[in-house]
Amino acid sequence: MEEKETKKVIGLMSGTSCDSIDAGLCEVNPDMSVKLIQGINYSYPEHIRTKLFAAFRGDISIKELCQLNFAVGKCFANAANLLIEEFGKPDLISSHGQTVYHYPYDEKLDNISLKSTLQIGDSSVIAKSTGCAVISNFREADIALGGQGAPLVCFADEKWFKNSLVQNIGGISNVTVISDDCETFGFDTGCGNIMIDYCTQKFFGQKYDKDGEISASGNICESWLDCLLQDEYYFLEPPKTTGREYFSYKYIENILKTAPAEPADIITTLTALSAKTIAQAYERFVYPYVHTDTVIIGGGGAYNKTMMKFLRSYLPRRIELKTHEDYGISNNFKEVMAFALLGYCSYYGIPDNIPSCTGAKKRTVLGKITC
Amino acid sequence: MEEKETKKVIGLMSGTSCDSIDAGLCEVNPDMSVKLIQGINYSYPEHIRTKLFAAFRGDISIKELCQLNFAVGKCFANAANLLIEEFGKPDLISSHGQTVYHYPYDEKLDNISLKSTLQIGDSSVIAKSTGCAVISNFREADIALGGQGAPLVCFADEKWFKNSLVQNIGGISNVTVISDDCETFGFDTGCGNIMIDYCTQKFFGQKYDKDGEISASGNICESWLDCLLQDEYYFLEPPKTTGREYFSYKYIENILKTAPAEPADIITTLTALSAKTIAQAYERFVYPYVHTDTVIIGGGGAYNKTMMKFLRSYLPRRIELKTHEDYGISNNFKEVMAFALLGYCSYYGIPDNIPSCTGAKKRTVLGKITC
Repeated sequence: MEEKETKKVIGLMSGTSCDSIDAGLCEVNPDMSVKLIQGINYSYPEHIRTKLFAAFRGDISIKELCQLNFAVGKCFANAANLLIEEFGKPDLISSHGQTVYHYPYDEKLDNISLKSTLQIGDSSVIAKSTGCAVISNFREADIALGGQGAPLVCFADEKWFKNSLVQNIGGISNVTVISDDCETFGFDTGCGNIMIDYCTQKFFGQKYDKDGEISASGNICESWLDCLLQDEYYFLEPPKTTGREYFSYKYIENILKTAPAEPADIITTLTALSAKTIAQAYERFVYPYVHTDTVIIGGGGAYNKTMMKFLRSYLPRRIELKTHEDYGISNNFKEVMAFALLGYCSYYGIPDNIPSCTGAKKRTVLGKITC
Repeated sequence: MEEKETKKVIGLMSGTSCDSIDAGLCEVNPDMSVKLIQGINYSYPEHIRTKLFAAFRGDISIKELCQLNFAVGKCFANAANLLIEEFGKPDLISSHGQTVYHYPYDEKLDNISLKSTLQIGDSSVIAKSTGCAVISNFREADIALGGQGAPLVCFADEKWFKNSLVQNIGGISNVTVISDDCETFGFDTGCGNIMIDYCTQKFFGQKYDKDGEISASGNICESWLDCLLQDEYYFLEPPKTTGREYFSYKYIENILKTAPAEPADIITTLTALSAKTIAQAYERFVYPYVHTDTVIIGGGGAYNKTMMKFLRSYLPRRIELKTHEDYGISNNFKEVMAFALLGYCSYYGIPDNIPSCTGAKKRTVLGKITC
């Protein structure tokens, strides 16, 4: 195996909220530490964003999807090129791509597994538009080995943190459990901001609940919260992952039928739901196996003061809440840093999935290389 | 650059008729010659084939397409594994994948090119199910550089043949022009067997016109033939490529509205159309620039005796018709041999598109590597 060296890697990522592409120039070191040199957000053109949401709803043709793959690739390349103009070419680009579909459930049809995932933003477009080698499409290999293709950031969490729960609250919320007591494992705890964002948009015309101000103004409707907490996903044993395919607009519109009348109360209750499902997930699937005193919060939800207040109230007193910044990891660019690390490992042929997180049959090298 | 060595490469390919996956174990040599050791056909399960045709019609959901990508990958892996069981692991697998969409036209939307292509049969599934490194997704890089992503087999034709027209008659017909007079170029001449196959299925319940027997029994309807020859595609200057997106079922049903009454006459006229469009393409786009006496025929159409008779009658007398076998190249497995060569070149970082064939801005290394 090639001797490992420090490499400059641009990580590229766009999450389920897809308001912008996160691009981060990183220095990745042989000891697996990652330093962010510069992170930027590149906004999708509005018509691309509209098409992406149509794709999430399954409401675009094969032709449009195929074109979107190239168009999103061009956007990812543009984001990388902004960094390249300032800092020069990196050794590698590592691109997560834009998920438009993720179906990790273990169903079969005619003995063929239906587990599948689709990240668009074609790697050849990125490679040829930047002149850099690109590592991309990380999730497929894990699914090919029976895993769910997610969560993948656990790999970075395991390298960066010790004896903690690393809780990301993005569109979806997921936790990585790192402990001397057992192998690292992780799973999606449920909704993070998806439903909140949908409802702030619907009722308040705002993309999200900035700093948790709307939710601070409402009250929790306990009976609706209890009802929402009955969803079967929360009771499933890990490994488990979920996404927009499950917590879909249809799902949200459906639960809104039984929602309280006051819009602010809806936002507050959904915020409590995200916090409570995290706390319950720990009670059900973490505390019985692992002793921990530290939860490290990340993702957009970390900035939602109401959600943080609820989470504090739902968690045992002994738990200390910390931030990624406490460990020198940018909260805003953590995922691009994680994918920079994954790209670095794939480049060197280092297996970079964690079967106890994804459910894959074995460790494997993820990704595809495009030169 | 790494010193080139002879490599064992399994080429995998499924064409637009998608009746089976062609898999060929090849020996690829540093001088670019390719020897077929063993070729096999692996039939798609019927339900996969049905889904593929639904995809061609644009008649499947994003979810189904996403699942089909993994299912087709598994089929490709199964095909490769049949060869691996008998001959052991190759150094590389080179997979073209299954095209479900190809749109090479130079339209723009909001200044973003709409050129795009989609080959499914996920390379990670093939790599992890065979334990071999896979080179795949060749067409994207050429499109990323402004090309049409096709034709790619020209690259192999140029290495294998001298001073000839290499005419493939598959679902679509395409020619490669190799001459000392100019750079190698190539283009799709038009329909090969797509419309014939559709009509033998529709009127005779047969998948194709075996040996040209049905077409031998009918007569050419000259007025309908003249009408069909007016399609604008045939007049476009190369480089140009086409596919099922253009010569679609809708297209065929539309032309059938003005077809002769006798089904055999329809098959005969469509067979003449394929032959005549080849001959006319040479007159318009080849003879003015290139002197040639040799046409090397390949593809399924080479076995259609009626089509060969028509082609002979439409071509100038000086032209000699030869077969791939005359040059030691298997007609049935030529495309897998060509993709074995492309995979070999991509592995070694040798640029393997031909801009004068595809219209790309420059030569580039195609493909993505999955380990």
